[in-house]
Amino acid sequence: MQAQKSNPPKGMRDILPQEAALRREVTEKIVKVYEAFGFTPIETPAVEDIKLLTGGQGGENEKMIFKVLKRGEKLKLHKPELQEDDLVDFGLRFDLTVPLTRYYAQNRNALPTPFKAIQIGNVWRAERPQRGRFRQFVQCDIDLIGLPAPLAEIELIEATTTALQAVGFQGFTLRLNDRRLLTALATQCGFPEEAHGQVFISFDKLDKVGTEGVRDELAKEGFAEESIAQFLRIATQATEEKLSVEKLRELLPSADPQIFEELETVLAVIQPLAEGKFDFLLDLSLVRGMGYYTGMIFEVSAAGLGSSIAGGGRYDRMIGRFLKNEDVPACGFSIGFERILTLLQEQGVKASVGTEKIGLLYDKKNVDFPALLQLARQQRSEGKTVLLAEKRKNLNKQLNDLQAQGFTHFGQFKGTGEELVLKELS
Amino acid sequence: MQAQKSNPPKGMRDILPQEAALRREVTEKIVKVYEAFGFTPIETPAVEDIKLLTGGQGGENEKMIFKVLKRGEKLKLHKPELQEDDLVDFGLRFDLTVPLTRYYAQNRNALPTPFKAIQIGNVWRAERPQRGRFRQFVQCDIDLIGLPAPLAEIELIEATTTALQAVGFQGFTLRLNDRRLLTALATQCGFPEEAHGQVFISFDKLDKVGTEGVRDELAKEGFAEESIAQFLRIATQATEEKLSVEKLRELLPSADPQIFEELETVLAVIQPLAEGKFDFLLDLSLVRGMGYYTGMIFEVSAAGLGSSIAGGGRYDRMIGRFLKNEDVPACGFSIGFERILTLLQEQGVKASVGTEKIGLLYDKKNVDFPALLQLARQQRSEGKTVLLAEKRKNLNKQLNDLQAQGFTHFGQFKGTGEELVLKELS
Repeated sequence: MQAQKSNPPKGMRDILPQEAALRREVTEKIVKVYEAFGFTPIETPAVEDIKLLTGGQGGENEKMIFKVLKRGEKLKLHKPELQEDDLVDFGLRFDLTVPLTRYYAQNRNALPTPFKAIQIGNVWRAERPQRGRFRQFVQCDIDLIGLPAPLAEIELIEATTTALQAVGFQGFTLRLNDRRLLTALATQCGFPEEAHGQVFISFDKLDKVGTEGVRDELAKEGFAEESIAQFLRIATQATEEKLSVEKLRELLPSADPQIFEELETVLAVIQPLAEGKFDFLLDLSLVRGMGYYTGMIFEVSAAGLGSSIAGGGRYDRMIGRFLKNEDVPACGFSIGFERILTLLQEQGVKASVGTEKIGLLYDKKNVDFPALLQLARQQRSEGKTVLLAEKRKNLNKQLNDLQAQGFTHFGQFKGTGEELVLKELS
Repeated sequence: MQAQKSNPPKGMRDILPQEAALRREVTEKIVKVYEAFGFTPIETPAVEDIKLLTGGQGGENEKMIFKVLKRGEKLKLHKPELQEDDLVDFGLRFDLTVPLTRYYAQNRNALPTPFKAIQIGNVWRAERPQRGRFRQFVQCDIDLIGLPAPLAEIELIEATTTALQAVGFQGFTLRLNDRRLLTALATQCGFPEEAHGQVFISFDKLDKVGTEGVRDELAKEGFAEESIAQFLRIATQATEEKLSVEKLRELLPSADPQIFEELETVLAVIQPLAEGKFDFLLDLSLVRGMGYYTGMIFEVSAAGLGSSIAGGGRYDRMIGRFLKNEDVPACGFSIGFERILTLLQEQGVKASVGTEKIGLLYDKKNVDFPALLQLARQQRSEGKTVLLAEKRKNLNKQLNDLQAQGFTHFGQFKGTGEELVLKELS
């Protein structure tokens, strides 16, 4: 018989013990911080109704859904003009925000106000596999539902930056903007409301293509030259020096004054907290990809890296989609768990050895199992980790292997009545 | 616009904060025990190749796979004589054992010997939804690869029974058997080898249908009357009194003597451990459903409940399917995580309150956010949980709600400079 293939599915991966230990340790540190802020873990199914996942809230992610085939009688393969939609009823979630809004709407009578949720779980996206991007990956979100701006934003920013520091990140940059300011800017420059989405998508590329690139893209879309020029003039003024709320007020006189007050409150709390620990900037060019944001948005990038390691914002109109004529204020911040894991591993960070770990070696000839297990039990009851293993011919190699696995001590089982001598592995 | 439906997919469920906390606490207790035995967590993808999942190792579970639709060009809907198999490439795992054997074969050069794995993760089965059975549920497995019998079995049994006690189970029953004894019994009675699987399936129903029921079912299958009579005579002798290895030797003279020696070794270690804590029995009628077992098998049932809360056994020929001409000794024990959670909840067990939890209430009029957050930060830095919430008109109800969520104290924020007075919630 031919041997079966043993590789994981394309773009997905097996996690080896050392990495699994680090993932668990990082997760625990983050959860501990979030719990101090009053957030509590919740879980939603990995699988959601395909209608929920294709409801228009997921942006580009909706094109990358792993869809689940219908089963039994519901699956009709020989229908004329068969479409993909006829065949599927569920899909794997592509993020944790869309499921959270469903969860809140479904369970809100049983949930406290404010509701502070921690979600750490896998999501799936059928992206073309590429270096450092996986088709199953962990997201780590906190969301705060039912608390108005700006306290929710403050709590999310303080909790997330504290968590990032707790897992060892320093000197990162947190950028803050507000979707309502982008809307005010686009309106002020005369872009029609239905075109705002397109304008923001082009503006989001400022980092990559520069002012001229954005100008070309907007011109190609056929927007008025005067609108483009005015937009870029304000944007340039907003990005060429350290931006203040005062400057924003001056640049965007048409925006609701409350937006500036909220930003000032966030700055008043977070700036002293950031002092000497991380950079905290207002950035009018921060857009963030998802269409569902309605207020403040924020993003963290690691020191020396352009790419973001966390991001989030306010989405006050998502939960309302499940309710009748009612909106629920909501705001979330998501840590890119895989990204921070990769960065930590690149820095050589490993899971800490929490306890004394003993390799207890026995000779397979005539081993007295009750006595061996009694000895192991004794050590384990003292809080130590004990691995039982047959002593190998090449003892030095075996001891090196144990050390590489994080074992701190070894002992050789001699038989009943003999005292165990533990030696340090070094 | 019509409100969107907010229920989770049929047969799946949302986990509310209180249950999520209990699940996390139970998981941590189990992992702590397993780590003391030298087991380490690993992770495999939730999605596996459909060929792996339908390779014949999953028994009835292979009929309940959630299958994943192919994507892009690979999906050909208008092929003549379209079959289900044409449409899918992946599936959601239905257990953790089949993925583990693939994982070990794929990664064994990077894994230690012996390899002791902890897997706690969701599995999916498209069962007809029914009370207490879910289509997404957590399994909690330990597996020991590369350690021969009976030490692997001893370690698995000791670790699992210790873990069950650590999460609060007492007085359960652990039953032990060996598939090789069942084979010897069937051979001794003259059943042809290719019929053993069918014989065991019928015998597995002894609990439910009794000796006469098993006799009728075997007769219906057309087996020789003499074989059936001899089989049930031995089985009856084995089940009517407390079974000893001595008695088994007498009943099954054709079995390999090594099997009895291995059972004796397990009994010699586990019986003193079980004394006064749980029942430990040899049971020749224990079959266990999966076809892949090759040696000892074991099952735990909760006190007063017929149904099992944990089960496992040796499967020495599964990993070899991925290798050329080589078998790897392997043995596993799985705790039915959802079952034990349900039992604990029925007993009123709740997650413990690990820390002082404070509800800090503020008046939404003119709140000084920097001062409020400074106060919260102070308490959080002392290891306490602090939830900030707007003070409601009905303060008594708000305090009752906080207490129901596990909060221990509350305080009212009066403004800058005022000292915080914390009161116990009771």
